Amino acid sequence: MVVTSRDVARLAGVSQPTVSRALRDDIRVSEQTKQRVREAAQLLGYIPSEAGRALSSGRTRRIGMLLTDLDSQFYSHIIAPVHRELERLGYQLMLHTETADNDTIVERLLANGLDGVILATTTIDSAAPLRLRDRGLPFVYFNRTGSLVDADATVVDAAPGYREAVRAAVDLGHRNVAAVLGPSNTSTAQHREQALRAALGEHGIVLDERLVRRVPYSSAAGEIAARELLESAGEPAPTLVFCGNDVVAYGALNAAHRLGLRVPDDLSVVGFDDLPEAAWPIIDLATVGFDIAGMASASANLVVRRIERPGDELERAVFASSFHLRRTLGPAR
Amino acid sequence: MVVTSRDVARLAGVSQPTVSRALRDDIRVSEQTKQRVREAAQLLGYIPSEAGRALSSGRTRRIGMLLTDLDSQFYSHIIAPVHRELERLGYQLMLHTETADNDTIVERLLANGLDGVILATTTIDSAAPLRLRDRGLPFVYFNRTGSLVDADATVVDAAPGYREAVRAAVDLGHRNVAAVLGPSNTSTAQHREQALRAALGEHGIVLDERLVRRVPYSSAAGEIAARELLESAGEPAPTLVFCGNDVVAYGALNAAHRLGLRVPDDLSVVGFDDLPEAAWPIIDLATVGFDIAGMASASANLVVRRIERPGDELERAVFASSFHLRRTLGPAR
Repeated sequence: MVVTSRDVARLAGVSQPTVSRALRDDIRVSEQTKQRVREAAQLLGYIPSEAGRALSSGRTRRIGMLLTDLDSQFYSHIIAPVHRELERLGYQLMLHTETADNDTIVERLLANGLDGVILATTTIDSAAPLRLRDRGLPFVYFNRTGSLVDADATVVDAAPGYREAVRAAVDLGHRNVAAVLGPSNTSTAQHREQALRAALGEHGIVLDERLVRRVPYSSAAGEIAARELLESAGEPAPTLVFCGNDVVAYGALNAAHRLGLRVPDDLSVVGFDDLPEAAWPIIDLATVGFDIAGMASASANLVVRRIERPGDELERAVFASSFHLRRTLGPAR
Repeated sequence: MVVTSRDVARLAGVSQPTVSRALRDDIRVSEQTKQRVREAAQLLGYIPSEAGRALSSGRTRRIGMLLTDLDSQFYSHIIAPVHRELERLGYQLMLHTETADNDTIVERLLANGLDGVILATTTIDSAAPLRLRDRGLPFVYFNRTGSLVDADATVVDAAPGYREAVRAAVDLGHRNVAAVLGPSNTSTAQHREQALRAALGEHGIVLDERLVRRVPYSSAAGEIAARELLESAGEPAPTLVFCGNDVVAYGALNAAHRLGLRVPDDLSVVGFDDLPEAAWPIIDLATVGFDIAGMASASANLVVRRIERPGDELERAVFASSFHLRRTLGPAR
């Protein structure tokens, strides 16, 4: 038998709308009536249906997270803390993969009755933020910014971390430097390149465009690009590769291994993100890190605030970066 | 302005229930009427609300996946293929973390109006399957079985993989073997231990209980247990550690590194799962593998079949295992 709000209403001696108001803790219902309704609901084992609740309140308390690559090591470390923080705030996370075109994605997000969306892989040129704005669905940028629409965002300031990293590299004798950066239509890749070039510039080092690759943030892409770069680089060969993120750096380490290059004796590698695996002794990746869990939590809080207090000013939560010197950065050959 | 089914009904010249039936492709509505309703809906930019659809059909087309550890490397490789296959079947995946007790979890799953659940970390002694059965919510076991309630399940047959692994190890001279296994209240850990002991037994090797640890499936737990085991083991020291899964094996590799043991010269390590990272040159973990993506897809199909054809016989999809010989298994010292 399915217990309905009608049954609860009958037992509590109130109207059906009063049942849902009481269970929503609506101020229009007296404490005494709320108590009676709760007792009746508990006695009957009544579970308020989410669908019914959504229809009456217009809220589903569900937040979508839009990602392209669910199996990236980066996102597996993001999903858990975002999920936990949203749960703490009384919301549920729904993952959405960006497989279709922008219009279809936005229609699907809307059809799912989400209260808000976290954009975690959206590129600079994506029209999705425009569509979301037009349809009135609140959203925040996670670890990125958009160029077409402004919104709440969490971002990293890569400058301090890269300054430390470049200083350490220069102290170790590196001057001939290569880079396997992220895709150029992402704000992260653009910003990191800028910060890296600025830090190198402080030591009079210019990143030669022939020693730069721009690839998707995956270890497979990082491996292919690093291998091609190292094989095609003339003399003197680069002694250090800066990678767009740790996942790309894992690929560069794999490429070095396959080419018979010892790390760091023949080649140094520096990542970005400081994922938990980067600190493992068997990987021990030198990398620029920031507070990933803090960013996850901040993004969850920003989207909830945007939903609950839509009039608040836009906020950009900026996370500082710092460098972690580890085994993969050694003296230049 | 929010367009409702009432607006679509008015424009199409049909009743409101006909609109929802037409958009659900109900056979009671003529093709001609469906066409008219679809055109009207498109013209007005009408998005059928999921909440409304759920109330009228009793289906949400949402499937929950119950996990304890969202940030485990294993689950990050599972979530993406399950998500993709469910999407292909017209369902959406909602992740749920098992933080509360069984009753609360089940109530929450029910309140979310899920059509079905994939149990991905449930232990043998968990009462959650009992509660789900009592409340009539369809579910399947992912990479496990339950002892209290039978249900559709996907499982690995660890025997062939362990037979190959043990044969390779014995050929390399290993006889003094240790094991860092998974938690004893999981069907995977119990089954793998049985298969490992049987395979060792074929070569007259008995796994000494003093050289066995049972830990949660995490690299941190694997590292602590492997370190303690290696430090406390008497002479002759074990030359090989079988690990409950790859994630635990990463921990064992880290422990060996911290103890100054060279792998495989001083110590060999064998994992289970063959995660993508295990094949990376920088990790190169010898491991027993199976078709992880196939299991993910099969689990998605099983839960959908259970929802759509509840009368079908229970199915257990068994995946074969095989051994991948890699660098971390070398000749015994």
